[in-house]
Amino acid sequence: MKIIETIPQLREELRKYKAQGNTIGFVPTMGYLHQGHLSLVEQSKKENDRTVVSIFVNPAQFGPGEDFDRYPRNLEMDERLLKELAVDVVFYPAVKEIYPGGYATYVEVGKWGNVLCGKSRPTHFRGVSTVVLKLLNIVSPTCAYFGRKDAQQAIIIKKMVKDLNLEVTIHTIPIVRDPDGLALSSRNANLSPEERKVALSLSRALEKAKTEIAHGLRDASAIKDLIRKEIDKYPLVTIDYVEVVSLDALEQIKTITLDNTLVAGAIWAGKTRLIDNFTLGEI
Amino acid sequence: MKIIETIPQLREELRKYKAQGNTIGFVPTMGYLHQGHLSLVEQSKKENDRTVVSIFVNPAQFGPGEDFDRYPRNLEMDERLLKELAVDVVFYPAVKEIYPGGYATYVEVGKWGNVLCGKSRPTHFRGVSTVVLKLLNIVSPTCAYFGRKDAQQAIIIKKMVKDLNLEVTIHTIPIVRDPDGLALSSRNANLSPEERKVALSLSRALEKAKTEIAHGLRDASAIKDLIRKEIDKYPLVTIDYVEVVSLDALEQIKTITLDNTLVAGAIWAGKTRLIDNFTLGEI
Repeated sequence: MKIIETIPQLREELRKYKAQGNTIGFVPTMGYLHQGHLSLVEQSKKENDRTVVSIFVNPAQFGPGEDFDRYPRNLEMDERLLKELAVDVVFYPAVKEIYPGGYATYVEVGKWGNVLCGKSRPTHFRGVSTVVLKLLNIVSPTCAYFGRKDAQQAIIIKKMVKDLNLEVTIHTIPIVRDPDGLALSSRNANLSPEERKVALSLSRALEKAKTEIAHGLRDASAIKDLIRKEIDKYPLVTIDYVEVVSLDALEQIKTITLDNTLVAGAIWAGKTRLIDNFTLGEI
Repeated sequence: MKIIETIPQLREELRKYKAQGNTIGFVPTMGYLHQGHLSLVEQSKKENDRTVVSIFVNPAQFGPGEDFDRYPRNLEMDERLLKELAVDVVFYPAVKEIYPGGYATYVEVGKWGNVLCGKSRPTHFRGVSTVVLKLLNIVSPTCAYFGRKDAQQAIIIKKMVKDLNLEVTIHTIPIVRDPDGLALSSRNANLSPEERKVALSLSRALEKAKTEIAHGLRDASAIKDLIRKEIDKYPLVTIDYVEVVSLDALEQIKTITLDNTLVAGAIWAGKTRLIDNFTLGEI
């Protein structure tokens, strides 16, 4: 496994793979890898000749006052995990390699970036789209892999790839959860034992909503109320948002359909913001 | 010469060239071709195995009330001219091929798009960057060619290509002029005989400024005053802007340097907006 820190060195390595006719799978991450990330890597390994994983905590997707500095990092652990999976290349660039002095270009997917998480994090998806576009241009992979926990992110990336005519296939991979149901997130490392317990409120509430939908409930307002009430039973937790939107346009819907619905929520457990969701239909 | 209207057909044709190991030169245009465009095509022919020219009047770079509808079009004439130069492919997409329903993704080069022409045309460079990025992704050329008459456009495209890590070389080609000095522009076709005469004011004023700089004048304000006064001698012309900025950052400068200066102006001759410039240093 090679660890590469600069764009020219990465391109040189990738040229070799391409000269051999290899397909390339790409998994962009912010590191502090958990089984969610590793399931993306495993899928890429299955479907491609070569797999490249990037580890880059992208400052452009954090707003002022957000947790860029507190975001957990552990390169040694990440390297060990990726080596076990026989990844070909880890791309680990410095911030100035991605955003050199005078950097000025940003891509936005219009209103898609202004709803759900984009409401509380106004420049977040601009940062996500921009860094993913850059990484896709640098790696030029056959396929790229994104987790469904960040459903809005996956939907926006697929939309950007389509709108900008990029020749890469985007695959999305199911959420991986702890045994008690908490969606895996690098940010879970920042939870105190007490916060860890109540963080469960979100996945529990979503699970309950899912059951009600399975029993026939279709009213989006009723589903949102149910989720909010369930979360409110827990102490120390505040709700950022609970939304029911269409999967294909991220627009608010009144009636749930079984093939085009995203039910998503975000909560604060102490200083840590956590998200979770389920979908009816495919991203 | 093939005329191709859809993205999949173009990609199929380009795959053949790439399988043959051909280099590809790309000249994006809005059609109604003049010798300025043709000099770009000639340069591409010299430097590449294959040359692709796109003809697409890009609605995204026209603001509301601008001359999208009045922009001159003549595909037959364009085809004839490009056939004479033995261009390989003309890509002539419909608007819905480039911007299908629900299109939402735009790229911007920050403050670079808000000065000079961007001041009077606030969404213009967003439209330019976006369509050029899309076309570069579709064609994936070795080199792409842009005219220096649209100096700000060329500078912004080079900046975008660098910032977004695109693997294409951007070449810029000198302004081509009528014998009396008027910079060639498709929009010159919209000038009445009277407007055509006074349109010369801009190139004449810039020529005078150039001479003063050659004689030692370095004060940017004095240069701007001189250009404004010269243009004001002509009837029927109004000034949109006259600016002296750095070539590498499009920032206002007080003192002219011989290696990093763009002197640019825009005027209205009747309903037609015309631009011209000269540079000290290379774009």
